[in-house]
This record gives sequence, structure tokens and C-alpha cells, in this order.
Amino acid sequence: MLYALGLGLGERPTDPDHLKFVYEENLEAFPTLPVIFGLSGVPMTDLPEMASIDYTKLVHSEENLILDHALPAEGDIICRTKVADIVDKGVDKGAILYLHREIYDGSEKIHYATIEESHFLRGNGGFAGESTVKSGSSPPDSLPDRAPDQTCDIQTLPQMALLYRLSGDLNPLHVDPKRATTVGFEHPILHGLCSFGIAARAILQTYADMNPARLLSLQTRFTAPVYPGETIKFELWLVDEKSVSFRAGVEQRDAFVLNNGKATIGL
Amino acid sequence: MLYALGLGLGERPTDPDHLKFVYEENLEAFPTLPVIFGLSGVPMTDLPEMASIDYTKLVHSEENLILDHALPAEGDIICRTKVADIVDKGVDKGAILYLHREIYDGSEKIHYATIEESHFLRGNGGFAGESTVKSGSSPPDSLPDRAPDQTCDIQTLPQMALLYRLSGDLNPLHVDPKRATTVGFEHPILHGLCSFGIAARAILQTYADMNPARLLSLQTRFTAPVYPGETIKFELWLVDEKSVSFRAGVEQRDAFVLNNGKATIGL
Repeated sequence: MLYALGLGLGERPTDPDHLKFVYEENLEAFPTLPVIFGLSGVPMTDLPEMASIDYTKLVHSEENLILDHALPAEGDIICRTKVADIVDKGVDKGAILYLHREIYDGSEKIHYATIEESHFLRGNGGFAGESTVKSGSSPPDSLPDRAPDQTCDIQTLPQMALLYRLSGDLNPLHVDPKRATTVGFEHPILHGLCSFGIAARAILQTYADMNPARLLSLQTRFTAPVYPGETIKFELWLVDEKSVSFRAGVEQRDAFVLNNGKATIGL
Repeated sequence: MLYALGLGLGERPTDPDHLKFVYEENLEAFPTLPVIFGLSGVPMTDLPEMASIDYTKLVHSEENLILDHALPAEGDIICRTKVADIVDKGVDKGAILYLHREIYDGSEKIHYATIEESHFLRGNGGFAGESTVKSGSSPPDSLPDRAPDQTCDIQTLPQMALLYRLSGDLNPLHVDPKRATTVGFEHPILHGLCSFGIAARAILQTYADMNPARLLSLQTRFTAPVYPGETIKFELWLVDEKSVSFRAGVEQRDAFVLNNGKATIGL
């Protein structure tokens, strides 16, 4: 419920399609919930192998969630995370960290989800002496060359990052004004994974009757920050019966905040 | 932090006077936090002595918080609750339940707060055969007979009750549309104690530099419901150097939602 409220669900408090994600009676798990699994426990920042990463300069760059099985509203979860690759882009450019997560039920009999994500380590380039070849996930598909089939605006709240972070991502970049300006942002920025969840809202309400079981995969690039309080404007294309492409921008800024987005929806 | 977000704090996310209540670095406890202590553990609804209460018709009617000692941001708390009195108003009118709570630190050496509250049990009148005399707290003071010295508007969010309830008050009246209409409300209503915390915001920002240690007591009557999303308009009177009287209404409705309010502020 806290995670769903952090995505802005509940802003129509008497709408059953909001209420089912934020009220314990007939509760359903919002389908992007797995992206917060594995954040508690030993933080990545505490692992000695990761000690040289400059986390203040880390920016989330891509997320790919593949859902194999609808999540229950209650249960034990096992999340296994590994570093899939680290690619050196050069001393002035930084490095890319590829993480791979598998999400199971507590008995490890049900596989719920696979998550592939990449983080741009802006302060950690040059360790290999030369640029290394990317070996992680393939790049997301490009968008259709036509006007969007649908658009969808979702307004974020000024306090949304403060609320979203209580689901486990406590990076001070999203709350501490000094930390944000130190690393080059005007204000604390919204979590990339919060806008990722909001993208799922846009897709579910546009193409899937807000039925969480119909989201089978969701993938996007994070191309610019969202500042809490901004309205995210989604452009969506129904590429085929099961495939949606999308991108998203914000009002009064040119940049797209999410790009090369792709979702698979079940029938 | 969750409690403070449930009162709308953080809506100015870069304002230090908001951030200090919603960010773990230099965190301060919002002074009305004690009102949610003691809600977990054995719910009142599960006690056999309270089994005959029709909780669907319970409405919070008065709250009086007396703060003896500033709360730490972290620590163990002991909350002792007792039923102070039950007053029968008659079979057609209902009954009033008076609760008394004392809040201590885990060692019971520091007394943080006393809470007196009354709940109107609309479905439980007539048990004594005749109206019994009220023996609980004295009625709140009346308001000064002049225009308010200050006014202050605080907007609530449509999802505010959904967020506030995660601090422990899970009464379905605040979330379930069917339950709300069954007991005579148009929609789920905001928790009285949420508007109580919002009253503390109004007083702290108007008269106490948002310094939580300066709120020494806060008392009000809940005289009409607030619907989530409405703007609460406070009228405040500085009665003397340390005493504030207040009431609050909402836009587009005549009724006052909080009345006979009184706060004591430290210098």
C-alpha cells in the first residue's frame, strides 16, 4: 500500500481501480512492486567489493522488468541480486553497472520476476584503461515513426520522492537539497523507479483496464530527471495486440524523461 | 516520517521546516505524534469488555494532548490507555466514551504526554436507562469575540486518509466508500486526528517558527467531517503570549470542522 501511494495511486480515493492497491480489503499488488524487493537487507553500498563506487554520482539508466507470475498481496519473497557486468566507458565518461535480480516466493518454487537494470557510475570511469564492450541486455526498441496512439498525463506530488523513498530507496539524492545540487541537479529528483511505476500506471489505465495481472513486462531508459511536482506526459503506441511502446516528457522542459519504453500486456 | 507525510508535511520538499519531519538526517518528531501511540498491539475492538460497541457508528469528538517533554526522533515508548468514563446520553442519542492515555519512554522515567479523548458512540445509548452526568474533562474554552488575528489555509490531499491510516488507525470509515455511506457520510472522511495534526501545523507555522518543542498542549472538538482533498481554513487568536485559540472550516461548506480549539505554546 505504501509503495502504491508512493506512485500516486489513491489520488482518486473512491475509484476501485485505485483502492484495490491501497486498501487491505481485496488488496492487489501493483505489478512493478518487485523493483523494490532486495533493497533492504545488506545495502549494496556496504559490500566491500562495491566500496570504490562513488554513489553520489550514480544515476539509474535502464530498467527491464519481466513478470512471470502475478504477485500475491501477501507472502514471503526471496530476491537474488548479482552484478551481471561492469562496462568502462573511459576516465572522463564513467562506467555502467549491470545488475540482474531474480524474484521468487519463499520456497523458491514460484518465479515471479526477473529484473535487469543498469546504473551509470559517473565518477567511476577509467578502471579498465580503455572502453570495454557492453555485454548486458540488448538496447530497447526504437519508437514507431508516427504520432502517438494515446497520450496520458499523470501529475506527481511535490512530496512524492519523500513518500516513495519509504519503500526502501533511501538515496539522499532524492531528499537532500544540498546533496542534489552538489551532483548537478537543481533540486532533489524523483526516483527513476518511481517514474517507472508511474509508467506502469499509464499503461495499465490506457490499455489494460488497470488489471495488474495483464502487465507482463516493462522496460525503459531514464533519460532525464523528473522533479517532484511535475506532470509526466506519456505518449503511447499500441504496436501490436500485446506490445506497447512509450516515452514520457514533462511540461515546460524539452527533455524526455523516459524513452524507448516498451511494455508487453496479456489479453 | 510516515506520520508527518500523512499530515501533508513534505509538500514543500526543500523547506527545512518540512524536511526536518520527513528525512532521517536531523529528524525531529512532529509534536502530535503521541496521538498514534497505542494503536498497535491489541486493538480496542478485540477487547471483550468493548465488544458491544458499534464501531461503525463511533465518531471521534474531542482530543486533548498535553506535552510534558519533547519527543525524541527515536526510542521506545510505553503507552497506557484506560477507559476514564462512559456517559449515557439516552437510547436515541448514544453514549460518550472517555479514554485517558499516558505516554512514557521505555524505562517509564520520562513522561512525554497525556492524552484525553472522547468518542461519540452513536449506536450505544440507553444502557444506563437514563442520561448520566458527564464526569470527564472540562469543556474547551470558548473563542474570543473578535475577528481572528491570523488565518491559515492548509490543503489536504485526496489520498490523505489513505496515507494517514498507515500510521495505525485502520478504521474502514476512512477508506471504504460503502462503509462511509452506510453510516451517513457521502465519502470516506479524513481521520479527526489527521486534522488535529494539521491544526498543530497551522499553529506551529503561525506562532512558533515550526519549532515542535514549543507546542505544549493542543485541544479541540471535532464538529464536522473533513473530506480528503478539501482545504482547511484556520482562524487563530493569540489570546495571550502563550495561548492560542482556533477553529477551522472548509471551503464551500458552512460547518466548522474543528471548534473551541486551544493551544499552549512555549516561549
